[in-house]
Amino acid sequence: MNFIRKIVTQSSKGDDKVFYDAMRNLLKFKPYQIENYQKAFTHRSLKKVDKKGEPFNYERLEFVGDAMLGAVIASYLFSKAPNQSEGYLTQMRSKIVSREHLNELGKDLNLISFVKSNIPQNNIGDNIHGNIFEALIGAIYLDRGYAYCNKFIYDKVIVPYVDIPKLEGKITSYKGLIIEWCQKKKKKYDINTYEDTGNEPVKHFSVKISIDDVQIAKGRATSKKKAEEQASKRVYYTFQKQIETS
Amino acid sequence: MNFIRKIVTQSSKGDDKVFYDAMRNLLKFKPYQIENYQKAFTHRSLKKVDKKGEPFNYERLEFVGDAMLGAVIASYLFSKAPNQSEGYLTQMRSKIVSREHLNELGKDLNLISFVKSNIPQNNIGDNIHGNIFEALIGAIYLDRGYAYCNKFIYDKVIVPYVDIPKLEGKITSYKGLIIEWCQKKKKKYDINTYEDTGNEPVKHFSVKISIDDVQIAKGRATSKKKAEEQASKRVYYTFQKQIETS
Repeated sequence: MNFIRKIVTQSSKGDDKVFYDAMRNLLKFKPYQIENYQKAFTHRSLKKVDKKGEPFNYERLEFVGDAMLGAVIASYLFSKAPNQSEGYLTQMRSKIVSREHLNELGKDLNLISFVKSNIPQNNIGDNIHGNIFEALIGAIYLDRGYAYCNKFIYDKVIVPYVDIPKLEGKITSYKGLIIEWCQKKKKKYDINTYEDTGNEPVKHFSVKISIDDVQIAKGRATSKKKAEEQASKRVYYTFQKQIETS
Repeated sequence: MNFIRKIVTQSSKGDDKVFYDAMRNLLKFKPYQIENYQKAFTHRSLKKVDKKGEPFNYERLEFVGDAMLGAVIASYLFSKAPNQSEGYLTQMRSKIVSREHLNELGKDLNLISFVKSNIPQNNIGDNIHGNIFEALIGAIYLDRGYAYCNKFIYDKVIVPYVDIPKLEGKITSYKGLIIEWCQKKKKKYDINTYEDTGNEPVKHFSVKISIDDVQIAKGRATSKKKAEEQASKRVYYTFQKQIETS
């Protein structure tokens, strides 16, 4: 009996360690209360409750995360678009925090791999990705406060995905823009895209862009198109003045 | 010429000092960049712009303040109602941040007295009260960050107005509840309400409640009803166990 109990405890501790390390790697900071993050990935179908008998699943955390995301994005847009009206800011934020966009974010971070549920993953619906992304933000807020929450949103949402000219519809494809500019200016360009999944569970692609045989930017994402847009956007910002005045 | 210029400068400095002191008194902390607060009280009808030619009125700050209010209230409700569902939390927050409620909050703080506008106050609509209240929250966030914003919302919204049992509809009138309880328990009660405006620009009422000739609680607000509810609520919390089991 003692022997069995020991094995069970060790195996459960092992799982905890794996989860803690995965969170630390994802968050880039030390989680204080790991229960917050466990809750963020627990589906209601498990019918789990905590010591006090309170529901232990991600739904309430999602409410907090949604509010924090709204606040952080509002403050970001306020400072980045100083000339724009309240109506514009509201509209931009809606685009950024749209259900589809949040689902995409959750998928890119492969958050589903942490979910504990009694419903098979392929039966749980697409919104789970965005919901647990919001719940994770809620968990960060409760665990470490607004500043950490702000930084996480900055790193995982704003830097890789928020692109004011693109959201405004001024630029629909950075790749198209770069090709057009190179052709116009008779520059040689090379967009080299290849599969580069490495050890990750989800397929990834990398891309290198060279102009006149000089490598200008790299990109990496879960689809060819995303990786190419990412790298092309970097090329755009490298040559922004020349492109805009061409 | 020099003489006139000097007078103008002094008078404008005097206004600035008055505004700074009023803000400090209202906020209970030192404003760092007073322009944030000036902006929060400037109506678009003035068509004011800042040095960079950007619009100088409260509308964009309102967007930030609304988001911060949503975040702070979400986090408060999450911790205060640990047994309730996401749907409940959403509904409670809607009640707290409703347009009518925000207008009431803005009126109670007499924020309209700071507004600069080209439209006469009585023509500007009732929503101005809530709008500038939100803009003020946005200004606090930009000036001093989330923690100050959180504290201001706590002091000005949560402590005086957020009352979970009442919002849930469990208690519709604390005064009624106290009277009923006193009658049932054959206790003598006295609710003494009187006008008590003092030097303030808006009429105020004070109330003292005694039970069996012992003063239990006081209240003060801009209406008789509010002051009585405030004091009755305090009596309720003093005798909560006895009242609930009676």
